[in-house]
Amino acid sequence: MIPRLLAFALVLTVQCTIHAADTTDSEVRQWLNNWQKAVSARNVDAIMALYGQDVIAYDLVRPLQYVGKDAYRKDYEEFVGQYDGPIVVEIRDLHIIPGGDVVFLYGMQRISGSIKGQKTDMWVRLSSVLRKTNGTWLDVHDHVSVPADLETGKALLDLKP
Amino acid sequence: MIPRLLAFALVLTVQCTIHAADTTDSEVRQWLNNWQKAVSARNVDAIMALYGQDVIAYDLVRPLQYVGKDAYRKDYEEFVGQYDGPIVVEIRDLHIIPGGDVVFLYGMQRISGSIKGQKTDMWVRLSSVLRKTNGTWLDVHDHVSVPADLETGKALLDLKP
Repeated sequence: MIPRLLAFALVLTVQCTIHAADTTDSEVRQWLNNWQKAVSARNVDAIMALYGQDVIAYDLVRPLQYVGKDAYRKDYEEFVGQYDGPIVVEIRDLHIIPGGDVVFLYGMQRISGSIKGQKTDMWVRLSSVLRKTNGTWLDVHDHVSVPADLETGKALLDLKP
Repeated sequence: MIPRLLAFALVLTVQCTIHAADTTDSEVRQWLNNWQKAVSARNVDAIMALYGQDVIAYDLVRPLQYVGKDAYRKDYEEFVGQYDGPIVVEIRDLHIIPGGDVVFLYGMQRISGSIKGQKTDMWVRLSSVLRKTNGTWLDVHDHVSVPADLETGKALLDLKP
């Protein structure tokens, strides 16, 4: 038989772990919500406030990697600068994997908006790592892409999940 | 002044945490080593033994996502089936982010080999999540890609880090 104190401690530990995972989940969804709002508003300051100084990003566009927040900021400026109005991001098939003070998330993103008067709409895959620093979740890794067709050399920009 | 027992407990906790991170790091490098050997040998059974049943993969090639081990196995069979001989994978700029029983890794991979007698060589970006299950690290998420050129619609298959 498990001593009562040990049983109590076990229940407490399990409850705390579930609570921590729940908290992480809702905090990460809040982070995503803030990111979606900042992207919609094409507000690069608000976007970059969600990133860590040491972020390493593999973006949809070249180069292979952006190292550090200053480099990635320029990439974001070019990205939002293309659009005439709000950029709408829909997220689907989202997975949130908690790991203590880090969390991993991946899913599909549909990015819609208007570029030079033309409506655009594209599905991309996203994988990210957030790290909690002084109580705030900051993104330290983004990987955004579409698949390639190796025979034609084309980027597959019109796939749907 | 910190009571001696508390100080001892703190030192022990810090040491255990460092030890756990070190262990994860060396176990993940061993996992990568096993993966590189299995890919080099084009041994799909050995490759798939390193993956979890619930893996979700965003690969270099279509579709947007592979859901589950059976789907991803077919993708691997096509991948290794293209090559005439060993597939050499070099890994650079590797980051390993431990999160308890999960770990996130990302870096650059150079994939070299021979396809229909032609030497091929390509740099891709990789992000993965491994989960420890019954003492064994299994990959539950892969994201492999090259950037796209949005103006020409081309996949950038010849970039170098």
